[in-house]
Amino acid sequence: MPPQLLLHEDPISGNCYKIRLVAALLDLPLERRAYDIMAGETRTEAFLAEVNGDGRIPVLQVGDDYLPESNAACFYLVDGSDLIPQDRFDRAAMLRWMFWEQYSHEPNIATLRFWRRFVGEDRLSEVQRAQVAAKQRGGEAALAQLDQALARTPFLVGDRVTLADIVLYAYTHVADEGGFALSAYPSVTAWLDRIAALPRFIPMNR
Amino acid sequence: MPPQLLLHEDPISGNCYKIRLVAALLDLPLERRAYDIMAGETRTEAFLAEVNGDGRIPVLQVGDDYLPESNAACFYLVDGSDLIPQDRFDRAAMLRWMFWEQYSHEPNIATLRFWRRFVGEDRLSEVQRAQVAAKQRGGEAALAQLDQALARTPFLVGDRVTLADIVLYAYTHVADEGGFALSAYPSVTAWLDRIAALPRFIPMNR
Repeated sequence: MPPQLLLHEDPISGNCYKIRLVAALLDLPLERRAYDIMAGETRTEAFLAEVNGDGRIPVLQVGDDYLPESNAACFYLVDGSDLIPQDRFDRAAMLRWMFWEQYSHEPNIATLRFWRRFVGEDRLSEVQRAQVAAKQRGGEAALAQLDQALARTPFLVGDRVTLADIVLYAYTHVADEGGFALSAYPSVTAWLDRIAALPRFIPMNR
Repeated sequence: MPPQLLLHEDPISGNCYKIRLVAALLDLPLERRAYDIMAGETRTEAFLAEVNGDGRIPVLQVGDDYLPESNAACFYLVDGSDLIPQDRFDRAAMLRWMFWEQYSHEPNIATLRFWRRFVGEDRLSEVQRAQVAAKQRGGEAALAQLDQALARTPFLVGDRVTLADIVLYAYTHVADEGGFALSAYPSVTAWLDRIAALPRFIPMNR
């Protein structure tokens, strides 16, 4: 019997949605436990000691073992499925987009969404406010880079959907909530539609 | 015959060193082409069109294909070797540390090293200066988290060295150049010594 899968999450987080979406696409049973980030529920002593020492979610619990980092949790779920390319170079190219997502996409697009939609721009600290313009530019550059790649091939690694598409879908499809105009990136919006049309797809807010 | 491997790099970058170190540990032939980041050599039209559209290095060229993102390039090199765990959960746990490196470690520790050692603190922009304190705290938190993990097991994923240890070695071992006192993290320094003692290990500056 495969180990039980329990997702420690906050439903507003795109990083948590990634994992729910992957589980849905693969038809894997996934239990969920919700925490309210805004109320500090992932900073309690119990959470830090048991679930994740740096207080971040999502964490995928696999039996008695804890796996932080959304993209690693997604990789665990898809390991051995056809969401991972068989070809060695393609497998690395998939991971290339996943590392790029965490370095060049999420810190700009997801952070501005969090600041603008959930914190409120008038409540930002001075240090945060000083970064808004750079994050706006960084997010636009990331969307432009995605658009270029998706003008060449229907999915990020060629003709078939891989995990890279799923993890990048999560924050890209709500980029407008961060102040980005998705209509400026037509290859991106066409690709978003392709992802949303996948069998067993689930939307973010459920 | 395996495809030729060519590393597009700047020798001062820890992200480039990771790839050289992995290739050395696995005894893989790796050609190198150097660019001077500080002189804008990765922002030329030719570089952006051919090597990497976002102007970042390293890029591993595999035959005629280009692979950006240091950790994806390292994964390509070790795929199928014993630097990747056989166990499914351990494989994901390795990637967990690699994603964490790009999100929570590199943007703090590598960026402060770049700013302090190569740019110079008095030449930072206002936006950069506003972030120094947060990056210092973030880097210290990352080193503390590494230290806790390495107090429990000799390597990040249990008893055996994996790619996670190699990629985290790159910027951790020069964290003092970013203004971090490594002596405060004894489990980290003992682990650095274990990595440096691996067969075929090469230091950063060569």
